[in-house]
Amino acid sequence: MGSRSKTDLAYIAGFLDGDGSLMIQLKKRSDSKKGVRIMFTICFYQDTRHEKPLHWIKSVLGIGYLSRRNDGMSELRINGYDQVENILTDLLPFIRFKKKQAEILLDSVKLIKSNKDKKSLKKLVDNIVAIQQENYATRKKRSKSELLSLLGLTP
Amino acid sequence: MGSRSKTDLAYIAGFLDGDGSLMIQLKKRSDSKKGVRIMFTICFYQDTRHEKPLHWIKSVLGIGYLSRRNDGMSELRINGYDQVENILTDLLPFIRFKKKQAEILLDSVKLIKSNKDKKSLKKLVDNIVAIQQENYATRKKRSKSELLSLLGLTP
Repeated sequence: MGSRSKTDLAYIAGFLDGDGSLMIQLKKRSDSKKGVRIMFTICFYQDTRHEKPLHWIKSVLGIGYLSRRNDGMSELRINGYDQVENILTDLLPFIRFKKKQAEILLDSVKLIKSNKDKKSLKKLVDNIVAIQQENYATRKKRSKSELLSLLGLTP
Repeated sequence: MGSRSKTDLAYIAGFLDGDGSLMIQLKKRSDSKKGVRIMFTICFYQDTRHEKPLHWIKSVLGIGYLSRRNDGMSELRINGYDQVENILTDLLPFIRFKKKQAEILLDSVKLIKSNKDKKSLKKLVDNIVAIQQENYATRKKRSKSELLSLLGLTP
């Protein structure tokens, strides 16, 4: 774990508000009970020619997977329940414009870590829909009924 | 002038490193002795649908001109010798990846504020070329000889 001063965290929060995203996604897979994996992601983007900030953010946060996309962009992705919870808790006081997404994401991680019953999963679906509404509309979004059926729940 | 805490400045520096640019430009105009205006600019960009951070940055810095472009992007521009010098001086300790541009820009403002003789203008041209090399290569760049001739100097 790198050191995290207040100004480092504020800097990273500024970078995130400008060039980042907070996501909750359901990914189909075969090795999970319900065939679905719940993914919480903090992501930072930058032009690959200027990806240095992403390396620095990775070293300060002490975690993350850095990759180069085909379109000239680089991404730093942070996944994992505990890691996302831990980092978002640190960043939250400094995030200004993605605060609502951050709060929904934190809320959802805590919810799912403690309980995966029907009620919690339904609440998770509502959170996914809410966070999608806050985010840019560039990615393909799953509808609420799609999300529910992925989790084996009926609307 | 808004209040500028360390964490506000670190946040803005993070935003600038991700989504901003630092520029020195020569603009032709008729009402100037040499027909040329030297422009120093700090610029922040954001998707117009998410331009709130730009309003906040403007209010913290206490200055800037916010405009909406035709391509769905909004810009916050800060111009003016004193304003750019003042703000960059505050931001410099927190800027991590545009530090070289920031130093060149600060250096150039100080230079031009104190002296506009031939030697200073030649140094300015070198600084413009240096800062252009650091920045993204998306805009049309002026060559060194173009810059010198704009200022009425011979290469």
